[in-house]
Amino acid sequence: MSTPQERFAQLQLVLPTPPAPKGLYKPLLVVDKLVYVSGHGPVRTDGSLIIGKAGLEMDKEEAKLAARQVGLTIFSTIVANLGSLNAIRRVVKVLGMVNAAPDFGPHPYVINGCSELFAQVWGQDLGVGVRSAVGMGSLPENITVEIEAIFELA
Amino acid sequence: MSTPQERFAQLQLVLPTPPAPKGLYKPLLVVDKLVYVSGHGPVRTDGSLIIGKAGLEMDKEEAKLAARQVGLTIFSTIVANLGSLNAIRRVVKVLGMVNAAPDFGPHPYVINGCSELFAQVWGQDLGVGVRSAVGMGSLPENITVEIEAIFELA
Amino acid sequence: MSTPQERFAQLQLVLPTPPAPKGLYKPLLVVDKLVYVSGHGPVRTDGSLIIGKAGLEMDKEEAKLAARQVGLTIFSTIVANLGSLNAIRRVVKVLGMVNAAPDFGPHPYVINGCSELFAQVWGQDLGVGVRSAVGMGSLPENITVEIEAIFELA
Repeated sequence: MSTPQERFAQLQLVLPTPPAPKGLYKPLLVVDKLVYVSGHGPVRTDGSLIIGKAGLEMDKEEAKLAARQVGLTIFSTIVANLGSLNAIRRVVKVLGMVNAAPDFGPHPYVINGCSELFAQVWGQDLGVGVRSAVGMGSLPENITVEIEAIFELA
Repeated sequence: MSTPQERFAQLQLVLPTPPAPKGLYKPLLVVDKLVYVSGHGPVRTDGSLIIGKAGLEMDKEEAKLAARQVGLTIFSTIVANLGSLNAIRRVVKVLGMVNAAPDFGPHPYVINGCSELFAQVWGQDLGVGVRSAVGMGSLPENITVEIEAIFELA
Repeated sequence: MSTPQERFAQLQLVLPTPPAPKGLYKPLLVVDKLVYVSGHGPVRTDGSLIIGKAGLEMDKEEAKLAARQVGLTIFSTIVANLGSLNAIRRVVKVLGMVNAAPDFGPHPYVINGCSELFAQVWGQDLGVGVRSAVGMGSLPENITVEIEAIFELA
């Protein structure tokens, strides 16, 4: 049996530096056995943000990659605050918010970019929680995706 | 004293088939005494979706009926996963998201379509939780309403 | 050591009357040690609402003041339901929703209007939780900001 951190290592992906909060909030907070994670944007490994409205400035494939990058950014916050991805037992809840044109439709496809990453690391059962995937009128600095999540501690 | 399931039966409403997830998520997840329910859309009993933007392609009365249909769709997920509406003790939290024109205003009126149904089944105290009712720029496949919820187990 | 209620008194701010729900929901619900607070709008002390889209009908400074007014409105609901701001031990989670033009960017700056108030009352550690700050396509009655929150009981 491999651990979440070992499964992540096998993906050979690079984490961005965990972003400093853009306002007055904590990136992550543990209350009893639940881990609350703030809304994260798609931070590249060079520190830049993936920006642009889905359905307008980028297509659903590019937006899905942005959601995957949000997942990696959340990983960086978990590792920085809890030491390793092994600190998480399961995904409880994901709110996936896509910065989208008014007629955009495939929000679930986009947010799968993050959800598939979570499932690869924590497994098809524990790595999959409840979720909403919805379209926002705007997001900070025009980032393409913002995702907040609740996890359960290991 | 009637049960929630008995009170639902008295309404003589028909549940849709619980929808399969449109992405990588669970429709419902129990963590300790809380029941987390994914964002649900308005699924008709024939399996089709109620679509269209409130304030643009449909008025507030039609949108309220869509929110009621979301409530029925959530019921179908609860029954499929927990056996009966009696498995729920109380409504804790509802996030009601309306796919609306930028100048739409009566979001609370629309989401009442779901909240009134919950109150009929679980009662005016236990069937009423906290809530936000807000307007999204877009929703998956242009559905009119998406609602996620947290309940407490009986 | 001053209490949250004493620190609020030192700010010499006036609370609005706690608003009656605009639909079928409770303003606040306690489940075990968590306090769930419904989405609140910016209610002035005269009972009127601060309305208008950020980036269109008002700038980011005015929108930040609206977010601060939402914080005061949440305070009024806490005091009305739990007796005092001392009933809250810590801020767990804030969802800050800005009614914004599609090209609006400084959502975190706006929501800081509420978060700074929370930090003044409950302190830089306990008064700061996780947060998402995002842009909605529309909000009820065209209010500028709606915020829902989860707190931990003292």
